[in-house]
Amino acid sequence: MGNIKEMAESLIENQGVCFLSAVDKNGYPSTKAMLAPRFREGLQVFYLSTNTNSAKVSQYRFNSKACLYFCDSKYYRGVTLQGTVEVLEDKEIKHMVWNKGNTLFYPGGEDDPGYCILKFTSHIGRYYSNFQSWDFRIQNK
Amino acid sequence: MGNIKEMAESLIENQGVCFLSAVDKNGYPSTKAMLAPRFREGLQVFYLSTNTNSAKVSQYRFNSKACLYFCDSKYYRGVTLQGTVEVLEDKEIKHMVWNKGNTLFYPGGEDDPGYCILKFTSHIGRYYSNFQSWDFRIQNK
Repeated sequence: MGNIKEMAESLIENQGVCFLSAVDKNGYPSTKAMLAPRFREGLQVFYLSTNTNSAKVSQYRFNSKACLYFCDSKYYRGVTLQGTVEVLEDKEIKHMVWNKGNTLFYPGGEDDPGYCILKFTSHIGRYYSNFQSWDFRIQNK
Repeated sequence: MGNIKEMAESLIENQGVCFLSAVDKNGYPSTKAMLAPRFREGLQVFYLSTNTNSAKVSQYRFNSKACLYFCDSKYYRGVTLQGTVEVLEDKEIKHMVWNKGNTLFYPGGEDDPGYCILKFTSHIGRYYSNFQSWDFRIQNK
């Protein structure tokens, strides 16, 4: 299975966007494209930046269960990761994930209260390629 | 709001893939890319073909709540639709949605028991463009 995880990481590394899904208060899934994570730790931890006031932040504060999906539509390949999202607003992590281009959306810079971090931690994954799929587990460090 | 719905339809019309999300038996969202729907009725009803034995078919039989997402990543635009999925296996609908290329996956043709239809019916939607979003309701006919 090592090879499957390597292929999943390689696919993730080459995508400019990802698809993050929550479950809303009425029990419906809700999906939205986001810019690819600025930082990740293997297949286990992903850091995404977003608006503190966005609908998905309230969704994850209410229900942390989430799915992060990466798609290489040209070759019909994809990676689905399931796990949980924490909303982080502490300085250290906001500074770590910040990039200069963010000033366009958050004029207050990396301490702007409108800017926060979604930390996604996965526990299982599935890799799709050529109309087949392989499940894998993600180990805690 | 008429204009928002027209923009949403135009975006949907131009995508080769879509992203369908379910909620699994453990309460986690689960997202997967699929080929764009073969037929649709405005923004309300979408017909997608899939494998009768796939994981998502069992998910929708257990919990019909779903999200269908279309993404135009080049221009940071997207459409999120929330609704329900029915798994259909009757002849008429399988024949209607069938296309010749499907023979590659279902050698038994349009009556192959391995081939079935997911009918997604939406009730609300959200259109994203230029880092803003607009909600809309979808009327029953």
